[in-house]
Amino acid sequence: MIKAGIIGATGYAGAELVRLLLGHREVEIKWYGSRSYIDEKYAKVYGNMFQLVEDECLDDNIEELAKQVDVIFTATPQGFLAGVLTEEILKNTKVIDLSADYRLKNVNIYEKWYKIEHKSPQFLEEAVYGLCELNREEVKGARLVANPGCYTTCSILTAYPLVKEGLIDPNTLIVDAKSGTSGAGRGAKLPNLFCEVNENMKAYGVASHRHTPELEEQLGYAAGKEVTISFTPHLVPMNRGILATEYASLKKVKQPDGTFAFPSCEQVKAAYDKYYHQEYFIRVLEQGMCPETKWVEGSNFADIGFQIDERTGRIIMMGAIDNLVKGAAGQAVQNMNLMFGFEENQGLALVPMFP
Amino acid sequence: MIKAGIIGATGYAGAELVRLLLGHREVEIKWYGSRSYIDEKYAKVYGNMFQLVEDECLDDNIEELAKQVDVIFTATPQGFLAGVLTEEILKNTKVIDLSADYRLKNVNIYEKWYKIEHKSPQFLEEAVYGLCELNREEVKGARLVANPGCYTTCSILTAYPLVKEGLIDPNTLIVDAKSGTSGAGRGAKLPNLFCEVNENMKAYGVASHRHTPELEEQLGYAAGKEVTISFTPHLVPMNRGILATEYASLKKVKQPDGTFAFPSCEQVKAAYDKYYHQEYFIRVLEQGMCPETKWVEGSNFADIGFQIDERTGRIIMMGAIDNLVKGAAGQAVQNMNLMFGFEENQGLALVPMFP
Amino acid sequence: MIKAGIIGATGYAGAELVRLLLGHREVEIKWYGSRSYIDEKYAKVYGNMFQLVEDECLDDNIEELAKQVDVIFTATPQGFLAGVLTEEILKNTKVIDLSADYRLKNVNIYEKWYKIEHKSPQFLEEAVYGLCELNREEVKGARLVANPGCYTTCSILTAYPLVKEGLIDPNTLIVDAKSGTSGAGRGAKLPNLFCEVNENMKAYGVASHRHTPELEEQLGYAAGKEVTISFTPHLVPMNRGILATEYASLKKVKQPDGTFAFPSCEQVKAAYDKYYHQEYFIRVLEQGMCPETKWVEGSNFADIGFQIDERTGRIIMMGAIDNLVKGAAGQAVQNMNLMFGFEENQGLALVPMFP
Amino acid sequence: MIKAGIIGATGYAGAELVRLLLGHREVEIKWYGSRSYIDEKYAKVYGNMFQLVEDECLDDNIEELAKQVDVIFTATPQGFLAGVLTEEILKNTKVIDLSADYRLKNVNIYEKWYKIEHKSPQFLEEAVYGLCELNREEVKGARLVANPGCYTTCSILTAYPLVKEGLIDPNTLIVDAKSGTSGAGRGAKLPNLFCEVNENMKAYGVASHRHTPELEEQLGYAAGKEVTISFTPHLVPMNRGILATEYASLKKVKQPDGTFAFPSCEQVKAAYDKYYHQEYFIRVLEQGMCPETKWVEGSNFADIGFQIDERTGRIIMMGAIDNLVKGAAGQAVQNMNLMFGFEENQGLALVPMFP
Repeated sequence: MIKAGIIGATGYAGAELVRLLLGHREVEIKWYGSRSYIDEKYAKVYGNMFQLVEDECLDDNIEELAKQVDVIFTATPQGFLAGVLTEEILKNTKVIDLSADYRLKNVNIYEKWYKIEHKSPQFLEEAVYGLCELNREEVKGARLVANPGCYTTCSILTAYPLVKEGLIDPNTLIVDAKSGTSGAGRGAKLPNLFCEVNENMKAYGVASHRHTPELEEQLGYAAGKEVTISFTPHLVPMNRGILATEYASLKKVKQPDGTFAFPSCEQVKAAYDKYYHQEYFIRVLEQGMCPETKWVEGSNFADIGFQIDERTGRIIMMGAIDNLVKGAAGQAVQNMNLMFGFEENQGLALVPMFP
Repeated sequence: MIKAGIIGATGYAGAELVRLLLGHREVEIKWYGSRSYIDEKYAKVYGNMFQLVEDECLDDNIEELAKQVDVIFTATPQGFLAGVLTEEILKNTKVIDLSADYRLKNVNIYEKWYKIEHKSPQFLEEAVYGLCELNREEVKGARLVANPGCYTTCSILTAYPLVKEGLIDPNTLIVDAKSGTSGAGRGAKLPNLFCEVNENMKAYGVASHRHTPELEEQLGYAAGKEVTISFTPHLVPMNRGILATEYASLKKVKQPDGTFAFPSCEQVKAAYDKYYHQEYFIRVLEQGMCPETKWVEGSNFADIGFQIDERTGRIIMMGAIDNLVKGAAGQAVQNMNLMFGFEENQGLALVPMFP
Repeated sequence: MIKAGIIGATGYAGAELVRLLLGHREVEIKWYGSRSYIDEKYAKVYGNMFQLVEDECLDDNIEELAKQVDVIFTATPQGFLAGVLTEEILKNTKVIDLSADYRLKNVNIYEKWYKIEHKSPQFLEEAVYGLCELNREEVKGARLVANPGCYTTCSILTAYPLVKEGLIDPNTLIVDAKSGTSGAGRGAKLPNLFCEVNENMKAYGVASHRHTPELEEQLGYAAGKEVTISFTPHLVPMNRGILATEYASLKKVKQPDGTFAFPSCEQVKAAYDKYYHQEYFIRVLEQGMCPETKWVEGSNFADIGFQIDERTGRIIMMGAIDNLVKGAAGQAVQNMNLMFGFEENQGLALVPMFP
Repeated sequence: MIKAGIIGATGYAGAELVRLLLGHREVEIKWYGSRSYIDEKYAKVYGNMFQLVEDECLDDNIEELAKQVDVIFTATPQGFLAGVLTEEILKNTKVIDLSADYRLKNVNIYEKWYKIEHKSPQFLEEAVYGLCELNREEVKGARLVANPGCYTTCSILTAYPLVKEGLIDPNTLIVDAKSGTSGAGRGAKLPNLFCEVNENMKAYGVASHRHTPELEEQLGYAAGKEVTISFTPHLVPMNRGILATEYASLKKVKQPDGTFAFPSCEQVKAAYDKYYHQEYFIRVLEQGMCPETKWVEGSNFADIGFQIDERTGRIIMMGAIDNLVKGAAGQAVQNMNLMFGFEENQGLALVPMFP
């Protein structure tokens, strides 16, 4: 039984961590950090936790916390962890950061896209990008894990095998992503009001969303070269779920008969299977099926489907996750499981809820 | 490890049984019965079950099924189980019926409200009304459990202690209930289309809904006399959740000083605590809090709040459940746990999902 | 062509006034008042108004405004108009107040329920309660109209004829009302966030909502005596619409044969028809039909249905309106039409939008 | 005052025609055709029409209807009109077809994508593609107008000026479109149930949706050559609205200084303005604004925004319409206005409803 602390426990991602960790047999939550609700009962902030959590919210004292727990989750605004992290803390505990502070290796790119100074770039090298299916071994030994963004988790997993295997031209990749509103956080902002979101749909952050460089960095590793990608997020009137629809031009590959041709369905499927065949949390759907966000709701699954369009020479890939689970808290717990040697799906073998 | 069969596994309640039983350590599902989808893969009918359920749907052969499993859940239309149940079946297995066939003791009332002939009234006497918190001991020894209706579970639990303790006049009870749309089932009917339900609200079955006699029978037992109750269900544009708002005139009760007066908040709270204090699944909220359906979503909890209105001499009681869990599949599993001596919350210690 | 000014033009009710007045042939909007968005383009605040409104928002200078326009609509917080209204203003212009400041005749009741001091009680006597169907003649000659609350409009219209005709006992009246979220306004508050409201339902303001005394005052006039009523509002995950479900005990009335009995369907229908038969905006549905909020969305209609419950001796009345139209801006325009001698449905002959 | 008949009046597009024509000063609806509801009151099928429409539904006798009315709207399944249209009918009346029967000039393409035989290809030549802003003059003189599809209206309007002006390479065009559920029609089908759509999102018809050839044909005219386009529709949990997010590679164009470079924001804006500057129903948003479907809800507007992405050399264009108005019934009425010489926005000067 390990002890965990959460900083930022009253945001939606923090609350989802609480939900998941309460169902985890090897973890006990010792610290519900929330600068906004210090000394208030956690169950007052989240009524669903009534009689399940008796604790009160605590201030964000990460140094003190590091001495008390085995792992700290930071579900905090960009820049927070970078501003307080020290070697001392990392000697005392492991840290899984749900913010973007350690996701990008290049501090200049971070500062350009996030428009804030990075206060502790010395940890960038060490931090492991916690997309478990891609970096499993590195995660196991990490002290500091950068938990991937919600959009990027979905977008990368959906395209990764085809980029890695050279079946698509990564520079033609266009990611059109749609997210439920919990991704926008629990801040009381006008654009997130029910009446503004309900019965409405829009793109936002077009050609400027901060998940773009994260996507490019990771798919660049897969491609073995720098790649430039179009990424457009959209806000959808639902609580949870991300659907990424991804377009790319197929590359002609050598066929058994020696000629070059676009890959067949079977070849694409084989590429996915090569990487995901043994992955519990990734479900490559049967030919012709399109993933639906509701099929993964509440679970840590990532569902993937694809369709080859011979008319245009493109492939359309589709991925679906629950943005708060595989896109945030679930993946953080998966990382924790890897870091502490628990079974990877401990506390995460959740059956998606439908309807 | 016991074996379970589900007849009607492809309705929403049946699918929720699958979700819950997959997370239950003591049960294995051996039979996914569905007359509409015979020989189709269950995971084709419910995409969320992809790679979690490999079985195909089977026909509704309850006699055969009874020989193979320890417990049968029937999530079937009214009249189905009454038409096929035999002593032979009950000798072979236990049956938990999610339909209304054995909820009412009086066959005439059943036939009047449901407008169908009851084909096996001989089992009405034996059937136990499976509202676990009220009939726990009877359930433990039962062969045949009548799982309560969704509206009635919520409505009864909310009013029961006050009726039982004589704090309200049961004949003044008015239950105004609001339900998510999953309560209407998965039938492809025009009134349940997204565009008909979304951004809409209406009452239905006014003064004629079939859950009324069930409510009256059970609260009549609590009152020790026949009671007549107003019950109005409403359809709400959400998937899950029932909220029951209940109104009743308070009765003056003897106070410590010997006078008669309306009960105080504390006295009402004490009545609730008397019955629910040790109940894991019933959460009586703190004074002044109103339950929200989202606080129980996906869980087996029933949340209860109340407000005394001194101006009118009435009390307003409010109860919230997830109609598919405590209102259907969750309570069925709770009944199963009692019948087989498992821990009552085995497979049901689910943290409500928010948002 | 008259000139109109709106103070509080950037709230939802104010924006609906803009929508309706833009479609009104006899009115020109000269002043978009909004303390929060001074000097910003109105169409920046409401994107739907792009190219339809070129004006910028102005400060709340009501004295100046009164000199420029024929009618002022105040869609402002409680207490605002009471704090600034003067005889001078009323000499210059007519005022239609969408707040509660002049709805209650008794200043003590106002101050008790609204918990603010009333700064200009001298106008309470003069103000006309602008429920057009009840007070048409008074409205026509008014300088100051108190536009009714959304819940009260719906609740009163639904019960009025039966109270007035003595068919129900008004002190048994219980109003269980459900409202879309636009009724909560456009303030950036956590409880109104999409993720808090969506897939959720709750009661609020139980036994303490401020529309209660308004309801009691108006139905008291109908009853010819003071009445005490239970009123419970609920928040529903939809943008627009109020559904009021109302319960009351029927009174036995003299029948043609001289005996006393509960009124029949026909007698109840006749009572509704007596008052609403010629009303354009009130649609008494056919026997057995329950109103749906979607049937009135975007329109100024109030739909009413009822069901007699002989078992309990009660009647269930149901009313539906669009809270922003008949419950706010639409009724305000209807009042304006009466005050200026326009056709009563000018600009308001809107066909409800479905779906 | 002209007379109109609607065949298919009880689908969502037909019902929207009724809503719009009821508010049109120059038209009277004489025929509510609906094979499914013959002899039923129209207001029973659409409760919102109570007391607004007293007519009963009639059978689909188009020959008889053609003698009685000046214009027939067919909001019918693919193949219906093609199967019944005759020269005799077109001599008697004008026809505006909301189905796809006459949208494609090439009968082979129609039969390949729609998988039905075209029964009257002799009218394909004559039929005018009724995208009013592009084919205004042809529409004015037409007897038979093929009203464009909802997705195509939105997608074409959004890209047209840039294709026409050669600012983008049309073969790189990718249209990722999202639609509210009313686009799926009022048929009682399981995938359109509230609980299946709500809190869910998915792509469908990937690389095979029937609107693709329509899109390619029309943009091919603009490009002056055949074009091949990727089009992916998605289902969104909202009633109304289409958002099309469109990606294309910019082409270098000659700049004032003689060099070739990607077009600037101003140059793109100028291209849009060249075609849409005087169009009442097309609103090209200000730089940096992304259209939202709610901003056009209930109206005939098409809102367009764009963002140049210099990193990728692509432009992201975004268009929003109400699928039932500009995407169906509204555009049909706009066509009618052109055909009969009414003001183009008569009956269509509707202010979008927000929220």
